[in-house]
Amino acid sequence: MNTSWITYAKLLEKELNSIELNSSPKELYDPIKYILNLGGKRIRPALCLMSAELFGGDIKEALYGAISIEVFHNFTLVHDDIMDEAPMRRGQATVHEKWNRDIAILSGDVMFVKAYEFLAKLDQKHLPAALKLFNQTAIQVCEGQQMDMNFETTKAVTLSEYIKMIELKTAVLLACSLKLGALIANASEQDASLIYQFGRNLGIAFQIQDDLLDAYGDPDKFGKRVGGDIISHKKTYLLLTALEKANNQQKLDLNLSLSASFTEEQKVTKTLAIYNELNIPELTKAAMQSYFNEAMESLNKISAEKELKKPLSDIAEMLMSRVK
Amino acid sequence: MNTSWITYAKLLEKELNSIELNSSPKELYDPIKYILNLGGKRIRPALCLMSAELFGGDIKEALYGAISIEVFHNFTLVHDDIMDEAPMRRGQATVHEKWNRDIAILSGDVMFVKAYEFLAKLDQKHLPAALKLFNQTAIQVCEGQQMDMNFETTKAVTLSEYIKMIELKTAVLLACSLKLGALIANASEQDASLIYQFGRNLGIAFQIQDDLLDAYGDPDKFGKRVGGDIISHKKTYLLLTALEKANNQQKLDLNLSLSASFTEEQKVTKTLAIYNELNIPELTKAAMQSYFNEAMESLNKISAEKELKKPLSDIAEMLMSRVK
Repeated sequence: MNTSWITYAKLLEKELNSIELNSSPKELYDPIKYILNLGGKRIRPALCLMSAELFGGDIKEALYGAISIEVFHNFTLVHDDIMDEAPMRRGQATVHEKWNRDIAILSGDVMFVKAYEFLAKLDQKHLPAALKLFNQTAIQVCEGQQMDMNFETTKAVTLSEYIKMIELKTAVLLACSLKLGALIANASEQDASLIYQFGRNLGIAFQIQDDLLDAYGDPDKFGKRVGGDIISHKKTYLLLTALEKANNQQKLDLNLSLSASFTEEQKVTKTLAIYNELNIPELTKAAMQSYFNEAMESLNKISAEKELKKPLSDIAEMLMSRVK
Repeated sequence: MNTSWITYAKLLEKELNSIELNSSPKELYDPIKYILNLGGKRIRPALCLMSAELFGGDIKEALYGAISIEVFHNFTLVHDDIMDEAPMRRGQATVHEKWNRDIAILSGDVMFVKAYEFLAKLDQKHLPAALKLFNQTAIQVCEGQQMDMNFETTKAVTLSEYIKMIELKTAVLLACSLKLGALIANASEQDASLIYQFGRNLGIAFQIQDDLLDAYGDPDKFGKRVGGDIISHKKTYLLLTALEKANNQQKLDLNLSLSASFTEEQKVTKTLAIYNELNIPELTKAAMQSYFNEAMESLNKISAEKELKKPLSDIAEMLMSRVK
């Protein structure tokens, strides 16, 4: 069997919608049902299932791991949305908007336990390693979120600090999903480590792409307003690369282009002009491609038939297809 | 050996102060060090150690369970303090006051993972049952907190709903601490269940006592302003019992005594007068004593020498000694 992401995504959708939850107090459980039913690409849990399948693991057991990862991911969304004061998530009101802050904190906490409940359903022999991986990843995701918040008020963020932040906030969870599938399938330590690196590098490439799309994406395809990061002065791979490459005059221009005296449209136009002058789109694409290549190299090294790895290389290509 | 609570509390204090935490980002780890070092009676983890000792378990392993429980408890304090907008905790600023809301949410989340990290250090053969117990308890504690918040805006709360709330919010964690110690010590299922019931009933008795002390405690000994619950219109065991026992006139008087036209002192005086008329202090003491007796009955039934149970009966007596 060689199952594609879309088949798994549908299976996962069904599983997530039928998670058994207590009925009371409903203030706690309604938000959990709500956020888990808002959709999403279900990439993380699909990666866990694909990895388990690649290494010949039990898909039923892997499903527990996959659901655990997706519930954890949604928990982080609920808490992050409070911190970011985000009104919308996937086109719908966020939990703290639809209910309130306290309910968002507490139903998030319950989801966190639920993630551990699914993890606890793994075969006893996989549990210690799975728990260790999951705990380590959960801590890293929190550290990434804190770094991201810190960056808002930090003047000088280096490119390597930025890469570290996106690695922790986003990439390690993709890596964890894949490694969890490998653990469940009793893959060798080397293969488990290779598939982790595949996910980690793919995750970093994906986040760099996100930054690129925010400034250069086709607004029709991207679904967000182009230039949003520029307008909100967000530290992105593009801005930090520009600040590293810029001469003194260009640095002044870059800071000036973000000054309050300009309209939002002017800010975007002026910043993009400097980005273009400094070759930022090409440099960003090259960085993205380099992480992507590293990811594919790890995938190639895994001791399995190339044909069996196709669903994973396909999903990697799909994730990168937004600008490639 | 027959170790008292105070010996364990000191050992735990040392362990908690030497928990290894990452150093960065410091915004995430400073609050964790801060809250874990604010002190407290360390009752929950001491119960875990005492239970492990009672059943002849490995105290080193039980220490992981004990620390896990105490870190979890402190995580709930950090998140609850946000929800309750509490400025002070153990005489010091709460985490969200000293830092901010977002840091309190996120460092709380990290503590939650830390609790699971300590749990994951248990012997592999104890892990599945320990994880199941811990997950169930964590969910119940969240449900209790939600019920407590709901009660603020619910008009008619019954006494049995109130007991359910304090059971979930407080008592099950004491019960879990004790049962965890029993699991680690490979106690029989029956003994594990009995020690759980000991903790559960003791916890309920303790919370009822808390309500009683708030209205009738010696202000010098209690350390809080007497009548605080009355002034803040909090639904307590006393108020709900009074509302169940009151005739129509007394119900009117009770509602009237809480009306805005009175000073805080008048509210307290008038409410206490009705409580006294309805025998509420005696009824509350009787309920407290009944839960306490049930707790001691469970302890008596445990298949161990009476002498070995002394530290647990001593701590139970100590917890009840504030009004007994």
